[in-house]
Amino acid sequence: MRIAFIGLGNMGAPMARNLIKAGHQLNLFDLNKTVLAELAELGGQVSPSPKEAAANSELVITMLPAAAHVRSVYLNDDGVLAGVRPGTPTVDCSTIDPQTAREVSKAAAAKGVDMGDAPVSGGTGGAAAGTLTFMVGASAELFATLKPVLEQMGRNIVHCGEVGTGQIAKICNNLLLGISMIGVSEAMALGNALGIDTQVLAGIINSSTGRCWSSDTYNPWPGVIETAPASRGYTGGFGAELMLKDLGLATEAARQAHQPVILGAVAQQLYQAMSLRGEGGKDFSAIVEGYRKKD
Amino acid sequence: MRIAFIGLGNMGAPMARNLIKAGHQLNLFDLNKTVLAELAELGGQVSPSPKEAAANSELVITMLPAAAHVRSVYLNDDGVLAGVRPGTPTVDCSTIDPQTAREVSKAAAAKGVDMGDAPVSGGTGGAAAGTLTFMVGASAELFATLKPVLEQMGRNIVHCGEVGTGQIAKICNNLLLGISMIGVSEAMALGNALGIDTQVLAGIINSSTGRCWSSDTYNPWPGVIETAPASRGYTGGFGAELMLKDLGLATEAARQAHQPVILGAVAQQLYQAMSLRGEGGKDFSAIVEGYRKKD
Amino acid sequence: MRIAFIGLGNMGAPMARNLIKAGHQLNLFDLNKTVLAELAELGGQVSPSPKEAAANSELVITMLPAAAHVRSVYLNDDGVLAGVRPGTPTVDCSTIDPQTAREVSKAAAAKGVDMGDAPVSGGTGGAAAGTLTFMVGASAELFATLKPVLEQMGRNIVHCGEVGTGQIAKICNNLLLGISMIGVSEAMALGNALGIDTQVLAGIINSSTGRCWSSDTYNPWPGVIETAPASRGYTGGFGAELMLKDLGLATEAARQAHQPVILGAVAQQLYQAMSLRGEGGKDFSAIVEGYRKKD
Amino acid sequence: MRIAFIGLGNMGAPMARNLIKAGHQLNLFDLNKTVLAELAELGGQVSPSPKEAAANSELVITMLPAAAHVRSVYLNDDGVLAGVRPGTPTVDCSTIDPQTAREVSKAAAAKGVDMGDAPVSGGTGGAAAGTLTFMVGASAELFATLKPVLEQMGRNIVHCGEVGTGQIAKICNNLLLGISMIGVSEAMALGNALGIDTQVLAGIINSSTGRCWSSDTYNPWPGVIETAPASRGYTGGFGAELMLKDLGLATEAARQAHQPVILGAVAQQLYQAMSLRGEGGKDFSAIVEGYRKKD
Repeated sequence: MRIAFIGLGNMGAPMARNLIKAGHQLNLFDLNKTVLAELAELGGQVSPSPKEAAANSELVITMLPAAAHVRSVYLNDDGVLAGVRPGTPTVDCSTIDPQTAREVSKAAAAKGVDMGDAPVSGGTGGAAAGTLTFMVGASAELFATLKPVLEQMGRNIVHCGEVGTGQIAKICNNLLLGISMIGVSEAMALGNALGIDTQVLAGIINSSTGRCWSSDTYNPWPGVIETAPASRGYTGGFGAELMLKDLGLATEAARQAHQPVILGAVAQQLYQAMSLRGEGGKDFSAIVEGYRKKD
Repeated sequence: MRIAFIGLGNMGAPMARNLIKAGHQLNLFDLNKTVLAELAELGGQVSPSPKEAAANSELVITMLPAAAHVRSVYLNDDGVLAGVRPGTPTVDCSTIDPQTAREVSKAAAAKGVDMGDAPVSGGTGGAAAGTLTFMVGASAELFATLKPVLEQMGRNIVHCGEVGTGQIAKICNNLLLGISMIGVSEAMALGNALGIDTQVLAGIINSSTGRCWSSDTYNPWPGVIETAPASRGYTGGFGAELMLKDLGLATEAARQAHQPVILGAVAQQLYQAMSLRGEGGKDFSAIVEGYRKKD
Repeated sequence: MRIAFIGLGNMGAPMARNLIKAGHQLNLFDLNKTVLAELAELGGQVSPSPKEAAANSELVITMLPAAAHVRSVYLNDDGVLAGVRPGTPTVDCSTIDPQTAREVSKAAAAKGVDMGDAPVSGGTGGAAAGTLTFMVGASAELFATLKPVLEQMGRNIVHCGEVGTGQIAKICNNLLLGISMIGVSEAMALGNALGIDTQVLAGIINSSTGRCWSSDTYNPWPGVIETAPASRGYTGGFGAELMLKDLGLATEAARQAHQPVILGAVAQQLYQAMSLRGEGGKDFSAIVEGYRKKD
Repeated sequence: MRIAFIGLGNMGAPMARNLIKAGHQLNLFDLNKTVLAELAELGGQVSPSPKEAAANSELVITMLPAAAHVRSVYLNDDGVLAGVRPGTPTVDCSTIDPQTAREVSKAAAAKGVDMGDAPVSGGTGGAAAGTLTFMVGASAELFATLKPVLEQMGRNIVHCGEVGTGQIAKICNNLLLGISMIGVSEAMALGNALGIDTQVLAGIINSSTGRCWSSDTYNPWPGVIETAPASRGYTGGFGAELMLKDLGLATEAARQAHQPVILGAVAQQLYQAMSLRGEGGKDFSAIVEGYRKKD
């Protein structure tokens, strides 16, 4: 299949690589010449604009840093919607606010294009390994079309509902994740301060009502889970700045929906304070360090 | 075995019943004559004071509402420590602060009595069914002695470390639980307000990084989990007032340990506000109602 | 002086009336025909577009609900900047984010127009009475030009610095105000619950280190300050929805500046929860009702 | 007058000195021999126990660190109530929880002693200068008796109501103070990050609705108020650990009264986190440093 792939950053590039490996012909666009050269060597075709990339493709995929980029890549004069043929299935894999996802999809529909949203989880590791989770907001028909292609980049392709619901699913999950990680951090740090062995405490929590992914798979206390970032100096996981971005999307979406998110708002501010202390580059589970005395 | 059992409330009475059924002879004490009469009919022996109940027993078990009761039942002139024979294994199953647990145990040690703490989880249902979890703080020797007896009242007997660690494990787990439930409530209510199907959202969370007991087993959104209190009007689970008590223990223990618990403190206040609105008798998952428009 | 006045809502209309009274000739624009007719009767001239209103004016004033309106009124094809003569002093009195204030001012500068921001406080009462406070972000020269005109609508004209600083001053002040009002509410409700006379408590606070405008001038407890909204059913003051809007501007500006505002974020969520309960139309001091048992 | 003065710490010693200067004969008790020796040189009489100090006095004053000390100094076998003559006016100036204040006063009443509470504000500086504020919970008659003596140690003697209300007034005021200081810190730090001059911002707040003691008298931003601790490295004011103690009393009193204090609980945790970072010895206004990038 001839696929336009626009946005070749830390996530997009390995995703595109997996599609090339799977035998697709890719029309590529990015501002970064180096990554374009790399992917051209693997057989990708470099396009001069999103418009041209989309023009002769059977499917369009975008993977961009934020809502402003999605707007310009789709809506500008040399953007996707200026070139794409009516009827071409289109999907944006960026993590952005549901409002923008819906607006851009509406603009696409006006051109006869069915466009969905499919933000991912799984990080750069999952992108390289082709094990991402895709949360897809799309019509049933579009979902059916996208699924086999997304499966070449991911392992878990979930249909969340109409366009926008992919973004909603992702920000709601990450809102909860951001809160849970702080909850686990407070529970572990309190237990440690009161004198229980942290390994024992984690074991009890994990077989009790406090059980959660942030405790049993990604515990923030060093040494509790050997494979977690906490056990390797909080490197190489899901950075605190990315969590901060997602909590910003969640609280902003909540504000627009007139919906309170009290712990979510506090969580956002605590990651912001962590970032202010210069720790934003660490894995988000390093939030626990704010609860421990410096040695 | 002859066992003193002191404190026969909603939890203590069914626990004592299970011990009688298992063939033990019980010396009973409580201020409530009705429950004493009931258990006497099953074969229990009524004692005039904790002192006398403990005096000729081979094991002492207490199950009381709060730290003040534990202090008086053990330390008063007619209390357990005034009657118990040196060397008698002793365990308090109340949920209280770790500090008091350690102090009373120290007073017991001064009389030659090895006393542990073993707070439970599982509620009145688990107490009746004999399926409680006991979180035990005790010496290895005392734990070995207690275990077979506790197994006649519970299914999961966990050794947490020295005396006090049972309480620590319980309040740390429940601190996290109180936070997680609000986190799930905010995520579900936000998703609902933004327009995703709540059943779909719960499914995504439960197979993703937001996964937790509060979502996959006890989801606060009505209809998501058929067996959860949310699906039967928030009745018959773990009452918000009990959660409030445990969060009070957690934040007070944190204060004494000079340990911050930021989300934990906010969670406590939100359950307090729920209680002020007259909703404290509902299951604690009804906290989600504060995030939904009244119909 | 011939002045373009654009935006004649609850605030703008009485402000324009005061300028007409002071003898100025006004070019008016709004979408509301009724208010235009009213002001035309007083001598104002109705313009067909912001562009035409600005075209032959010596000064341009705008007073709009939100940033999106400011952008379109200034930047659209029939907007102010399409018509205004280079060199015409221009000021936007809307309360919006500092970022937009700076961007629109930059667009104005590109047309040779010096444009400042001057959000107000004092409410509709102050607008009618001509006693508003203007927080002005503008060059020293522009401030000198604007001051005498603003004095015909207000009593207190403060120069805050370059363009954007008017907005910054307003959102920082209102961030603090939103927090203080909740602080006073918690202190008064706690004192009341513990059994001190609330009038006595307010008196002590007002002569001590808790002293603040939210306590000594606008106390949320009914009966403490006779002239405060609390003493007339929380009507006729500064609505909770407006406070919510300003806290939204503050937390969003903080997010963009990577600056934590922890209590501010909690305050925003508490007003949001108040709004969800259907109380957003009341004066913002009614936040205290969430801390009191319903009768 | 012959006055028993018990508790001669950082606050009690200078208060006792002022009474000696005013011509009273003091019966002194403390565990610290050095301070006793010092005050004996000024003419004070050292007593071997609180009981003996109270025995032949016409008035009893106590100034102790916490509730546990108040209990033991009054209720122990060699305590005040074992020695004091019925009818002797008695006042405790410690800052403790209202519950304990009422209980000890009740025990005193059982011995025919009218005992009030009169916590102070003004710090060690005010104690030395005799300019303290006393918040007095006492019967009208006892207040009338105490007032002239308290005036020899303070400038502002406020009658708050019956016994316990002195403590209530103090913790409610300090609850608000702890919140306000963080509110001002967030507003100042946000303004600074957004680019307004902090001196200008403080000026605007101080003449607007954000006006409060924490801004106009004790501003946490260095240089804004020359006499504030912020302008001398956060030394020599009201230590963060003391604020933490008072917020602990407030949230604990709130818990017992089933009263939510949401911002108050967050404020307590933020001072606790400050203390964990090793900054608890600084003036409480140094909380602002958590909102600023380290240089």
